[in-house]
Amino acid sequence: MPRPDKHVFVCTQSRPAGHPRGSCSQFNSNDVMEAFMAAFQEHDLWGVHKVSASSCIGPCFTGPSVLVYPEGVMYIKVKPEDVTEIVESHLKGGQVVERLMAPADIW
Amino acid sequence: MPRPDKHVFVCTQSRPAGHPRGSCSQFNSNDVMEAFMAAFQEHDLWGVHKVSASSCIGPCFTGPSVLVYPEGVMYIKVKPEDVTEIVESHLKGGQVVERLMAPADIW
Repeated sequence: MPRPDKHVFVCTQSRPAGHPRGSCSQFNSNDVMEAFMAAFQEHDLWGVHKVSASSCIGPCFTGPSVLVYPEGVMYIKVKPEDVTEIVESHLKGGQVVERLMAPADIW
Repeated sequence: MPRPDKHVFVCTQSRPAGHPRGSCSQFNSNDVMEAFMAAFQEHDLWGVHKVSASSCIGPCFTGPSVLVYPEGVMYIKVKPEDVTEIVESHLKGGQVVERLMAPADIW
């Protein structure tokens, strides 16, 4: 595919139960990844934008983390039900979803 | 960690043997990922730049693919022995490694 307009990375890092850092996986990041895949299909975004799963991208206790490049916007504590808003507002509309953005001390 | 200056994604996607798309994993992308981890340690890049493993990011037959954001530069057919050049030239020096860049019809 050509270079995407926006490239979404969903952290799906897992760690063993009880690990002190925790992980996005323990906060069900795989469900968020699946929600993005479904939204890309529904909104016909393949070929324009791209979504990939990623290993650890930074914060762990505020997962699931979702990172959008090239602008480098980090969303935290993303739930599957937030994905439509990210897709419609940010990917399609160019407006970041401020309520989900990581604070400056995290990213 | 704070927002990285440059964020390297190494595709470590795997697919079953004989899959028609192939995968970066079949071209030993895990060795490339390990080389980046070692280079980050050697050059003390943690806290400045970041490296993450990624699922499929685009081209498959020209793997291993390495993608650097925010500039969106895609390197293809990256070998572990290329990693020092990418780190020194691109991450530390700000000069892309043209000989490894994906052609326009790929990215």
